[in-house]
Amino acid sequence: MIDCGEATQLQCKKYNVKLSKLDHIFISHLHGDHYYGLIGLLSTMHLYGREKKITIAGPPGLRDILTLQLRYSETVLNYEIEFTEWLPNQVETVLDHARFTVTTIPLDHRVPCSGYLITQKPNKRRIIREMIPKQLPPAQINLLKNGEDVTDESGDIIYENSEVTRPPLPAYRYAYCSDTKYKPAIIDQIKGVDMIYHEATFMDDMEDRAGKTFHSTAKQAASIAKSSKADILLIGHFSTRYKNLEDMGTEAQSIFPNTFLAKEGETFKVG
Amino acid sequence: MIDCGEATQLQCKKYNVKLSKLDHIFISHLHGDHYYGLIGLLSTMHLYGREKKITIAGPPGLRDILTLQLRYSETVLNYEIEFTEWLPNQVETVLDHARFTVTTIPLDHRVPCSGYLITQKPNKRRIIREMIPKQLPPAQINLLKNGEDVTDESGDIIYENSEVTRPPLPAYRYAYCSDTKYKPAIIDQIKGVDMIYHEATFMDDMEDRAGKTFHSTAKQAASIAKSSKADILLIGHFSTRYKNLEDMGTEAQSIFPNTFLAKEGETFKVG
Repeated sequence: MIDCGEATQLQCKKYNVKLSKLDHIFISHLHGDHYYGLIGLLSTMHLYGREKKITIAGPPGLRDILTLQLRYSETVLNYEIEFTEWLPNQVETVLDHARFTVTTIPLDHRVPCSGYLITQKPNKRRIIREMIPKQLPPAQINLLKNGEDVTDESGDIIYENSEVTRPPLPAYRYAYCSDTKYKPAIIDQIKGVDMIYHEATFMDDMEDRAGKTFHSTAKQAASIAKSSKADILLIGHFSTRYKNLEDMGTEAQSIFPNTFLAKEGETFKVG
Repeated sequence: MIDCGEATQLQCKKYNVKLSKLDHIFISHLHGDHYYGLIGLLSTMHLYGREKKITIAGPPGLRDILTLQLRYSETVLNYEIEFTEWLPNQVETVLDHARFTVTTIPLDHRVPCSGYLITQKPNKRRIIREMIPKQLPPAQINLLKNGEDVTDESGDIIYENSEVTRPPLPAYRYAYCSDTKYKPAIIDQIKGVDMIYHEATFMDDMEDRAGKTFHSTAKQAASIAKSSKADILLIGHFSTRYKNLEDMGTEAQSIFPNTFLAKEGETFKVG
């Protein structure tokens, strides 16, 4: 989960997101709409009897706040929190999971703020089942998945990798960039991502105000996506002044056609 | 407002409670379901441009938590918070308003916890408009409202109080008691209240568990209301294990007939 505003646990319930499946939480910055729901979510997990460790990454201060709240409620959670507080303004890997890594994307906001780049680890080659016997030992299966041939004791090839496997599925990358002023410096880091979520608080007519409040316009978000050569752009974090969000989408699409609005409850699949 | 769980601001919106009318907030204790919504409520008031002071009373620690959250979000509220942190286990007046006072009711819970007794100040006598001239000077009106006669320079009575006024409306008292173990010691303080809200987390069959978790049963809540000679009892804070809340009501009514269930969105008028 990336960011956790107030009442996130109610939204999880509404959209049938199981808290028990949640193992990693990433907070971008300490403005309320991005983290006020975290302490409630953690408390609810405790009440539901969670014992599985959870990892939380966020800016300096987050751990202080949560610790103080738990201390005054005299709560000792029955699960472990593994905390990572990153340093603002530098790229840090905050999670190295068996299947993906999560790296901070330093952003430019009124308080220390980083987005997150999720990079799937390379997938293994896929075995063509009908080309190998059913009883092939796991060690040999692994050789094939790793791109190697299977040989006999004398070194002769029994199964040639290219004949019994297909290329791996592509490894996907997703970049979450909120909240931030227009910051082209992030483009290098997120080059070629499959999907980028970028905030678009304002439209182009409010570009000045966007800069002053350290937010972006829909056009600026689209320009980041275009320069990054991303596949898909999601925009969100819209100012309540805009009643017709479709205009937001149209503005972004004029620069980057493959733009979608991140509306409440919508689901998008990366890759 | 007494207590402020997560998403209280959403509930206010749902039930059309205007945040601009809210001037005093009282927190009973630092368990999340009683205060996690406070920081969000205060932030929203700030974003809406509130400039009017707000008073907040609560247990030691509340100010620390809010201050830390505001510091990390680099927020300086554009309104003043007047903070009162009461001492647990003693009766303290935390607000002396022109029309009412608010006093803590020390309770018995797992963390420092106090309920609140709201006592309306005595009302003034009500003038019978048709018995006095329209132009009567404000000073003379005030004399009458305060129970005195209006006399002329020589001391002769012009308007006799009992003839031109009616008795004042009664001054009401409301006691809020949550969360707490059964605590008959509070009865003296709340004797004769017009309405009492008392927690009833469990039913009588779980009396043991109620004691161990520092909560009350519906029967215990009713017994407090009965011994206090209260007019009306509201019970709430029901454990989610009870699917049929009417049984809760029935249990309490067997001891104190004038019991109502405090269900979400319901409104009750004191007096």
